[in-house]
Amino acid sequence: MSNHHQQNNQQEWQGGGGSSNNSNNIGGGPCGACKYLRRKCVKGCVFAPYFDSEQGTAHFAAVHKVFGASNASKLLLRIPAHRRLDTVVTLCYEALSRVRDPIYGCVAHIFTLQQQVLYALPFLFFFLFFVFLIKKS
Amino acid sequence: MSNHHQQNNQQEWQGGGGSSNNSNNIGGGPCGACKYLRRKCVKGCVFAPYFDSEQGTAHFAAVHKVFGASNASKLLLRIPAHRRLDTVVTLCYEALSRVRDPIYGCVAHIFTLQQQVLYALPFLFFFLFFVFLIKKS
Repeated sequence: MSNHHQQNNQQEWQGGGGSSNNSNNIGGGPCGACKYLRRKCVKGCVFAPYFDSEQGTAHFAAVHKVFGASNASKLLLRIPAHRRLDTVVTLCYEALSRVRDPIYGCVAHIFTLQQQVLYALPFLFFFLFFVFLIKKS
Repeated sequence: MSNHHQQNNQQEWQGGGGSSNNSNNIGGGPCGACKYLRRKCVKGCVFAPYFDSEQGTAHFAAVHKVFGASNASKLLLRIPAHRRLDTVVTLCYEALSRVRDPIYGCVAHIFTLQQQVLYALPFLFFFLFFVFLIKKS
């Protein structure tokens, strides 16, 4: 995946914690994940940099419902720290999509985009044919 | 989601059980899910119609790793029986994508398709401009 996508994700992401390092919310109470799970947010909590105690709690609720906190935590721990933000963004996106649409989840978006690409193909062929005609004349 | 997508999913799905009703694999041993979880496949097992004991086991392994068997089971039980096949197909798709690409999962596919749509837009505008010129002349 390109850096472009990484930048896009970071720009689009609005529900993460205030800091992007791995410290926990010192002085700011538990992170959104620990707040939702009603547990103490310990130093080095894997969710703390990405789930703040406001919007992050709602996002984590979706992640917990769809993936489970344990699965999400295991997944994050397997990924290098500098790629975790992207992982959290995509996990939240998938989870929120699945909560909204329990049957298709974010795959509904893939279907829609595939159809858009399919509809756009004739225009591309028309354009290529037009260029071919110009070159020939 | 349209019936078109539902038909597409059913055509694309190759890892489901032999039957699409809710009976379990009577006489055929445990379903792929119960085989993976090493448990007895009871009558009415929610996974049995969709995970056979061969390819279904590999697909269920991905679903279990990413979503967890309990979450997948809860999700399926909340969905009417006639929509569960689509749900299993999309769950497997998401899970296999996440196993292949732990950072982006199937969202990588969404990024790619979004870029394709973005690249196709100028061709669409060119076509519309061309039609406009023809109508004007």
